[in-house]
Amino acid sequence: MPTISNRGKRMPESPIRKLAPLAEQAKARGTKVYHLNIGQPDLPTPEVAIEAIRNIDRKVLEYSPSQGYRSYREKLVGYYKKFNINLDADDIIITTGGSEAVLFAFLSCLNPGDEIIVPEPAYANYMAFAISAGAVIRTVVTTIDEGFCLPKVDKFEELINERTKAILICNPNNPTGYLYSRAEMNQIRDLVKKYDLYLFSDEVYREFIYTNSPYISACHLEGIEQNVVLIDSVSKRYSECGIRIGALITKNAQLRKAVMKFCQARLSPPLIGQIAAEASLDAPEEYAINTYEEYVERRNCLIDGLNKIPGVYSPIPMGAFYTVAKLPVDDSEKFCAWCLTDFQYEGATVMMAPASGFYTTLGLGRNEVRIAYVLKKDDLKQALIVLQKALEAYPGNTHK
Amino acid sequence: MPTISNRGKRMPESPIRKLAPLAEQAKARGTKVYHLNIGQPDLPTPEVAIEAIRNIDRKVLEYSPSQGYRSYREKLVGYYKKFNINLDADDIIITTGGSEAVLFAFLSCLNPGDEIIVPEPAYANYMAFAISAGAVIRTVVTTIDEGFCLPKVDKFEELINERTKAILICNPNNPTGYLYSRAEMNQIRDLVKKYDLYLFSDEVYREFIYTNSPYISACHLEGIEQNVVLIDSVSKRYSECGIRIGALITKNAQLRKAVMKFCQARLSPPLIGQIAAEASLDAPEEYAINTYEEYVERRNCLIDGLNKIPGVYSPIPMGAFYTVAKLPVDDSEKFCAWCLTDFQYEGATVMMAPASGFYTTLGLGRNEVRIAYVLKKDDLKQALIVLQKALEAYPGNTHK
Repeated sequence: MPTISNRGKRMPESPIRKLAPLAEQAKARGTKVYHLNIGQPDLPTPEVAIEAIRNIDRKVLEYSPSQGYRSYREKLVGYYKKFNINLDADDIIITTGGSEAVLFAFLSCLNPGDEIIVPEPAYANYMAFAISAGAVIRTVVTTIDEGFCLPKVDKFEELINERTKAILICNPNNPTGYLYSRAEMNQIRDLVKKYDLYLFSDEVYREFIYTNSPYISACHLEGIEQNVVLIDSVSKRYSECGIRIGALITKNAQLRKAVMKFCQARLSPPLIGQIAAEASLDAPEEYAINTYEEYVERRNCLIDGLNKIPGVYSPIPMGAFYTVAKLPVDDSEKFCAWCLTDFQYEGATVMMAPASGFYTTLGLGRNEVRIAYVLKKDDLKQALIVLQKALEAYPGNTHK
Repeated sequence: MPTISNRGKRMPESPIRKLAPLAEQAKARGTKVYHLNIGQPDLPTPEVAIEAIRNIDRKVLEYSPSQGYRSYREKLVGYYKKFNINLDADDIIITTGGSEAVLFAFLSCLNPGDEIIVPEPAYANYMAFAISAGAVIRTVVTTIDEGFCLPKVDKFEELINERTKAILICNPNNPTGYLYSRAEMNQIRDLVKKYDLYLFSDEVYREFIYTNSPYISACHLEGIEQNVVLIDSVSKRYSECGIRIGALITKNAQLRKAVMKFCQARLSPPLIGQIAAEASLDAPEEYAINTYEEYVERRNCLIDGLNKIPGVYSPIPMGAFYTVAKLPVDDSEKFCAWCLTDFQYEGATVMMAPASGFYTTLGLGRNEVRIAYVLKKDDLKQALIVLQKALEAYPGNTHK
């Protein structure tokens, strides 16, 4: 039997999905599982999007252009303008989810062995796409005790060498909910400029900012326009994770030309997803307002609740819909699995993502979990009760 | 400005799509362009598929499982059984088009520098995915004069060395329309067994076989079950190129486990595409019959017409909906571009794919083009007239 590739062996299992078989077994035993593990919003997709799909008037479901429909890209220009991001339709390449945008950015910008600096904890799949592309992730550590703020510039410069080609940020951040300040973004801009790096900026959570701090996009930073690659996706803002529509955006025409070759090879992004995504841009203003207000309440409910549980600590996330919380446990991976295999309270348990999968530095995140607040408030409250009971019952509780 | 990656530079432009800007310019001048360049069938998608999309009854367009919906995979088991391919639902991983299946097969099976043997001319995007994965394509040449049959075993063995990890075939073949015989498939099986190689078999055109020869799937070959990776797609058989639904199928559980890690990283295949693809399995029998009969007629029309043009030769393709034809021109790439920039006959011209992009051996295919017969017969006839007139007018005609 021929062997598996080294990258196939090295690929991490998704920390968000690896416990799924245990959750299935729990459900098979009749246990209700509160899914706090995955960023799959339960909120409705805009009705205009569902309607656009229902009204599809085509005889042939044919290829769309490799860069995505022009009508959609032109309409996106107006969307970004509202965030003071000024684009041409040609700056925008539609991708199969934000995932493909990350992969194509890596493939187009980096040679095997090239290094990307990423603040950790970080979205776990960045590591997976780096392995796919043969790139190396180097991390600067952010800590729960400092609220996951960006380390000082010298921590970055310690890592920079001749293989360093890019900095990758997620803002607002998954998994921490951190929002980078103007000063932090300027610090990144200066580094990018000084060392002529790419700046990959994943900003799919820009609608979800809960403080009065401004949203500073990488596209707002002056003097590095040719270095910035914006990663985007409609998944979160419209509750449309399933349609797989994202975007890779850059003012760098030479880079777009390279990216387009990867786009042509995979022929086109999903057709019906583009129809839904384009229609979503016409969602009424109340859609965004209601969604936003719902998350504000959920955030308050979750963070208050977490910090009331003995031994638990969560900073207050400024954006996105995740938090990384510290739990009084010996090993959060064991604890998360134990919740699914050995515990239930009044017929229910919780599924969370062990935070170790969001760190590359070995040993970090061992007593942290990522919690997504994508459930209705009543469910969140119930999940918090279940979590508290689970911690009380867990043999590896370190707070007892 | 940071530099583009080497693979970004090395990526070939798609021979199918690279002339598209010239076609756009021709259209802007009011010239009608007959698209013989791309395998985008003009036939209708099954109505059950469009209906399934129109009847979508969901509030949230959420992630689907990374391996695709179980209901769809279970239903596919019955589809494959009709071709005497016996599978479990767990053998099937749903991908974002056949394209993603090829990429994930390469990423999971091959290390950078590993070699894949491919008969050429070959589907151009295999080269692109090999570059993405850092793999090396080595080709055995098939020739138009021998009807693109497979070379003898020694031509393969000449290429086999310690880096050889796989053989890749497309059967029925894109771009040649060739169908591998039982003897040829047995030859491949013996090679795969002897050298313990992977066999990647792209069989997306199995519905389109026009001779009485049997369809021998790689899955029919005994003794190499753990080596075979079947690449599939619904794009061609249901005229559903736009929904981006394919499959990677293997009995090799260890390989599936590696592939699944790449699947988890990109979260899920398109949701609505899966709904359409699953519904398509219920298309009435007449759908397949009508589609088949239409292609039989188009094939006859095209091949007869081509061989009547002075200096043109096309073998009779046994399957798929392409042929590689020899034209009496100095350089088919120049000729194809010239048709779009400098020629029109009664307000129309033709767009074809220069065959050189389907070869990796430099200089091959210089007087060949790939022609897709995906147009209605009347349009095909008109396109043939235009092609004949274009050849007559072309300054680089070598038959004059």
